[in-house]
Amino acid sequence: MDMNSRDTLVTELNVLGDFDPIVPQNWKNPEFVMLGNLSPQVQLTTLDRLESKPKLVVMDTMNFWMDIALDDLKTVLKKVDVLTINDEEARQLSGEYSLVKAARKIREMGPHTLIIKKGEHGALLFGNEGQVFFCPALPLEEVFDPTGAGDTFAGGFIGYLASVGRTDFEAMKTAVIYGSAMASCCVEQFGTTKIASMTKEDLAARLDQFRSMMGYELQA
Amino acid sequence: MDMNSRDTLVTELNVLGDFDPIVPQNWKNPEFVMLGNLSPQVQLTTLDRLESKPKLVVMDTMNFWMDIALDDLKTVLKKVDVLTINDEEARQLSGEYSLVKAARKIREMGPHTLIIKKGEHGALLFGNEGQVFFCPALPLEEVFDPTGAGDTFAGGFIGYLASVGRTDFEAMKTAVIYGSAMASCCVEQFGTTKIASMTKEDLAARLDQFRSMMGYELQA
Repeated sequence: MDMNSRDTLVTELNVLGDFDPIVPQNWKNPEFVMLGNLSPQVQLTTLDRLESKPKLVVMDTMNFWMDIALDDLKTVLKKVDVLTINDEEARQLSGEYSLVKAARKIREMGPHTLIIKKGEHGALLFGNEGQVFFCPALPLEEVFDPTGAGDTFAGGFIGYLASVGRTDFEAMKTAVIYGSAMASCCVEQFGTTKIASMTKEDLAARLDQFRSMMGYELQA
Repeated sequence: MDMNSRDTLVTELNVLGDFDPIVPQNWKNPEFVMLGNLSPQVQLTTLDRLESKPKLVVMDTMNFWMDIALDDLKTVLKKVDVLTINDEEARQLSGEYSLVKAARKIREMGPHTLIIKKGEHGALLFGNEGQVFFCPALPLEEVFDPTGAGDTFAGGFIGYLASVGRTDFEAMKTAVIYGSAMASCCVEQFGTTKIASMTKEDLAARLDQFRSMMGYELQA
């Protein structure tokens, strides 16, 4: 990005930073909250406007906010349970190349659980007791449009947890598989085309592919 | 690589191509054969000198042989059961970017089973009936020296299969996990230091880490 386009983006995002997130009354006591990738200030304001502490707060963010709003980002990190970022962002945020070390440092910043997304290389889930779980990405014939894969992953992740009302590590493993399955559909067509028309049967079939790809019996 | 160093390497490897692989009499009827990454001609000569058809032939190769000895490589590929290469090499050999498509094309060249190694991103196993299995790499605190990781993987893979005398897909899944576990140890110290001193208990502990990282119960 050259400086001009970057300045333009900063201006646009400062405007976005002024966005005032109104939380409707009937949404003020959610059990499960997904803070999408907006400015840390908007994320913080949203949390402040809730009337009760949610059972689980999941947050997405990106390198851009680390560049221009790191202090705000660190403030909101203290209030979230699960952070989802990609591998490069985990390295930037922690200053560590090793994802194991990066995860430890980031978990000390607030979120007890961390998901590091690695795109076509899958996702790592670091749990609140130091557990590690790995979910592969489904190898695909074609990746048509990766736009929205991360958001779809996050939606599938928290959507599964909300649907079962659980926040334990075992449920989070399943949630990561659901998120990965939905993201694998997202990228196969343009924009939201495939996700918008997806049925529960489609999801079940995709989950079967993950079962098959991940299932093993480790013999002695 | 500049042309001069490349020419030197080609010369050295042509000399290596003249290497005459003598197979001792008591090794002429092996059940399990691992063809290490030498010239396709040496690999072919080695196979030709066996007196009986092995139960399983696993072969390693690299981009260099694709560049300078593709015809020989294709000849030996017809005689092997399992090929192990990395993702870039799979793309080069097949001309396909998608690893799913690449695997299909390569399996049509001879090996009924293909392992695509992705370094820190794990390994994909494509089976003889089109099955796919994914084994992650263990996230490590430090990667000290990646030299030999691929060879260690291949050795662990075929070593496990030879130890149980099996060549079915389920056994190969376990073999990929053994290979990955051993490779994860290899890279933690310089050269063969760690592998040379590794005990069965060390391997068992490492396998437990894989079990923990890969284990899940997918709830509805």
